[in-house]
Amino acid sequence: MSSQASPTLSLKGIGASPGVAVGHAYILDRKRVRTPKLRLAEAEVDPERMRMKTALDLSDQQLSDLKEQISHSEGPEHALILEAHRLMLHDPMFVDEVNRLIVEDRINAEWAVRRVARKLKHLFDNIPDEYFRERRSDVEYVADRVVRNLLGQVVDEEVALPENAVVVAHDLSPADAALLARSGQVAGFVTDLGGQTSHTAIVARARSIPAVLGAGRASEQISPGDLVAIDGQRGVILVNPTEAQLARFHETMRRYQESEARALAAKDLPAQSTDGFRIRLVGNIEFPEELPALLSHGAEGIGLYRTEFMFLDRKEAPSEEEQYRAYRQVLEAMEGRPVTIRTLDLGGDKVPGKGKHEKEPNPAMGLRAIRYCLANRELFRVQLRALLRASVHGNMRVMFPLISGMSELREARSELEACRTELGRAGVPLGKRIPIGIMVETPSAALIADRLAQEADFFSVGTNDLIQYSMAIDRQNRDVAYLYKPLHLSVLRSLRNIVAAARDARIPVAMCGEMAGDSVYALVLLALGFDELSMTAGQIPSVKSVLRQSSRAEAQKLLDEAMALTTAEEIERFIRIEMDKRFASEE
Amino acid sequence: MSSQASPTLSLKGIGASPGVAVGHAYILDRKRVRTPKLRLAEAEVDPERMRMKTALDLSDQQLSDLKEQISHSEGPEHALILEAHRLMLHDPMFVDEVNRLIVEDRINAEWAVRRVARKLKHLFDNIPDEYFRERRSDVEYVADRVVRNLLGQVVDEEVALPENAVVVAHDLSPADAALLARSGQVAGFVTDLGGQTSHTAIVARARSIPAVLGAGRASEQISPGDLVAIDGQRGVILVNPTEAQLARFHETMRRYQESEARALAAKDLPAQSTDGFRIRLVGNIEFPEELPALLSHGAEGIGLYRTEFMFLDRKEAPSEEEQYRAYRQVLEAMEGRPVTIRTLDLGGDKVPGKGKHEKEPNPAMGLRAIRYCLANRELFRVQLRALLRASVHGNMRVMFPLISGMSELREARSELEACRTELGRAGVPLGKRIPIGIMVETPSAALIADRLAQEADFFSVGTNDLIQYSMAIDRQNRDVAYLYKPLHLSVLRSLRNIVAAARDARIPVAMCGEMAGDSVYALVLLALGFDELSMTAGQIPSVKSVLRQSSRAEAQKLLDEAMALTTAEEIERFIRIEMDKRFASEE
Repeated sequence: MSSQASPTLSLKGIGASPGVAVGHAYILDRKRVRTPKLRLAEAEVDPERMRMKTALDLSDQQLSDLKEQISHSEGPEHALILEAHRLMLHDPMFVDEVNRLIVEDRINAEWAVRRVARKLKHLFDNIPDEYFRERRSDVEYVADRVVRNLLGQVVDEEVALPENAVVVAHDLSPADAALLARSGQVAGFVTDLGGQTSHTAIVARARSIPAVLGAGRASEQISPGDLVAIDGQRGVILVNPTEAQLARFHETMRRYQESEARALAAKDLPAQSTDGFRIRLVGNIEFPEELPALLSHGAEGIGLYRTEFMFLDRKEAPSEEEQYRAYRQVLEAMEGRPVTIRTLDLGGDKVPGKGKHEKEPNPAMGLRAIRYCLANRELFRVQLRALLRASVHGNMRVMFPLISGMSELREARSELEACRTELGRAGVPLGKRIPIGIMVETPSAALIADRLAQEADFFSVGTNDLIQYSMAIDRQNRDVAYLYKPLHLSVLRSLRNIVAAARDARIPVAMCGEMAGDSVYALVLLALGFDELSMTAGQIPSVKSVLRQSSRAEAQKLLDEAMALTTAEEIERFIRIEMDKRFASEE
Repeated sequence: MSSQASPTLSLKGIGASPGVAVGHAYILDRKRVRTPKLRLAEAEVDPERMRMKTALDLSDQQLSDLKEQISHSEGPEHALILEAHRLMLHDPMFVDEVNRLIVEDRINAEWAVRRVARKLKHLFDNIPDEYFRERRSDVEYVADRVVRNLLGQVVDEEVALPENAVVVAHDLSPADAALLARSGQVAGFVTDLGGQTSHTAIVARARSIPAVLGAGRASEQISPGDLVAIDGQRGVILVNPTEAQLARFHETMRRYQESEARALAAKDLPAQSTDGFRIRLVGNIEFPEELPALLSHGAEGIGLYRTEFMFLDRKEAPSEEEQYRAYRQVLEAMEGRPVTIRTLDLGGDKVPGKGKHEKEPNPAMGLRAIRYCLANRELFRVQLRALLRASVHGNMRVMFPLISGMSELREARSELEACRTELGRAGVPLGKRIPIGIMVETPSAALIADRLAQEADFFSVGTNDLIQYSMAIDRQNRDVAYLYKPLHLSVLRSLRNIVAAARDARIPVAMCGEMAGDSVYALVLLALGFDELSMTAGQIPSVKSVLRQSSRAEAQKLLDEAMALTTAEEIERFIRIEMDKRFASEE
């Protein structure tokens, strides 16, 4: 079992799918193709365009076959991404531009494909959301396939995996990730690129396969057959561990399995403090395939259903019917549990079918979310009608993102009312009025929460954005990410202000930012008085465990002491030490 | 006098230098050169590089001559920009890249210059500050000159202006603006491009010549000899006005002259409410040449001296000695009046000598201002040492921009103390301790103003940024600029919170954002209790006039009523109506 001959190595990545795995490394090396660069003579232009067309057709056929396979074994949701890839093969922005370069710049098809792909990838550069940044790898995946087909290389070779393999790769295409996951041979995933929201992470979580992504140069540092131990919660990778390390890893694995078992056992227990304060723990989701994990971890509903996924990688915005079906599917699956759906939270650069959008110098402070929807009413109305129609199929709540003042809330609400009237006149069944809430994620909304609470049915605090705008930082920017501090005194004061406003107006107040799912903040949030915390499935058990062992009175004392301190560093140190004292034995 | 044959036309632009002018249009049409595009044969490459070198030398000589002329007549500050232009001619980013394109892409020099200029201009695209955006026209100006010299066209032809001319142009180069202004023949300026911070605006204000810039297609819509009446305060341009319009314009001109006379008369009167609340009115400056106008309008000091100008368009950051001289010059000119100097408020993309800086997706939320200085200590220390050395020459205060929490203030302060100790040990005379304040311009700082007030010697509220971050908007982005509302309830509450914190800690609180200089807000700011308002010279008289006619008690009543309203639109309407009732006869 040990392989002491090879050097022991400890690597760090992003914990993207929880669980612990130990297995031998299988390096999946879909080598990067070198792109030949040639200048064409005039007579070569037309034949080159034909070569390009053939490669496109072949790529299309391959993707269609793959989609068929995956759809069959994994369900149609998993195949959606492949359909998006196929659409790219037919997108004029891709195809026409490649042909233009062949004709006008007289360069060979491979080179032209690379140049266009680079341009397309740049479109994603300035998007603040991690999700979109990772869509860049989709572009690369498609371009790679086309170039391979141009070069006549073998694509989609079957991989013969050994049993219990830890698959190590530079990056995994969505197709590879799905095909490998269903093989049943994979103990874990390690990739150099990717993160929480990449497709590999989603597939891994859906299959409960531990995964550490974004692990730097892991695929170069790990050799085939190396013994690899990974912790998909903490993002730890041990290569050729010593006997002692391995023993500790097995111990972690045992504890993880125990804690999973405890979570399963506690699945139906309420998240209630020892002095009787009850908090509803619900889930954040992006894709319907995340639902089973949520339910198995005891989510009491959905606190944030992001609707952006339907608008991505498309040529046209999704129809009312398509949106209706998606919302209905989730509502039905949740069987009467509350489902909070957020209306479109995108900027114009990502919404399909709107023609060329001017690049914004600061997209995070640009025309996005509710502003974009209010500026594009028809697109907004399609979503609102789909939501209203779906509302009869479950316990739905709707919330508007990035509200900065009362006027926006009123406008969005009256648009919803207009849609309701319109559908009602057309005889569409609508059921009872649905609660309409807002994301509190601008400093402005936090400052006037008392007024907004008069006209919103609930609040959901988006801490990710609230913190970023409060500090004036983009936390995707590595140079200033150090200023992102959930326990900054200004953040705590904002939160206290928001909760007090909700209390006074007797409306529920939730949190759906990342802060909600980190158990180190659980007592702070208990003290502040949140009614609901929304997080990923895997975070529910540890947050619940902290809440069930503590009293609100004790939490309030902790918070008061913390808020008497001044710098974010002091407060953070204080809370971590106190939480360690109380819960060190857990995890 | 009338020219009723030609159609009357009313145009709108940005009021960039106040005053009213009526005169005949002189269209300064430095026609855009058409750039020939040619592919070179191999044998043509070396001769083309020689042509390029000759054109560069010629351009350099011309700029040097111009600089000499302007420096002689206008003083050396006005010639600085031409020196920056000359530096560009020697900048490897410009010269080497042009030569590379000639050699590698085999294109002619004119085309290469245009391509490189376009690339350089794009560097300014993503900068949130209007000032930098306008530096793009400097690049164009230099590129134009080089292309003209390549083509053998006449450059810098003398312009024979008729008397009392309104100079109309697509854009004016800094050299043109300075040379025209000193001719004494110019009644006013109208340009299609430009704005408050463009060099034409600065030159015009320094010479008290009315100017309307950013006027769209004015240079096409106005014909030579048209009678043109402009209002440089409101940004109004009337072309071939009717007799009635002209009469009204002359009336406006008369009133403006009267109000200027009143301002001059009121220059030494205090800005004090009828019930004795005294506010200090001070000036925002960027260039030393703005000092005379400030003093003639009765500024009691400088509330914001921006130090960025020294760092722009340069290859190396300014030396300690150069900075010392600049600060000393302003301190001495202000003769003991308080001068608040803000430390560098730039991002790494604009600071010279740092090599290539990665482009930030959201520069407004990136590594800038105090963050940049704390990450680049030596650059920061050079500025701090220059400030400390200059402090003996006047009444200096220093403030740090973009503070988001106490840790930054402490670090910046201790850096300053370290510099003081170092200089003291070296025997440099330093005088008494200088007050150290902070810009309150992040929502976070506003929320913890009470804590910051314990360790800052004064506050200065930067409303421009505070409003932008609170609403999560970039107001340079036309699609969301409508959300920029100084009277948003959340802004008023933030301001009240900041002032209360300063009062409790007994430190002075100023405002230096644009909100401070607009007289429509003067009563609101009087009610809130600001000690000091900092604005441009031309804004001082009208703000002072409002303050001297009102009581603080009445202002507080107004503010209370406003803050009982909810939407920004309601509050704005209320304040405008109330201010109109009180001060409609003025202006």
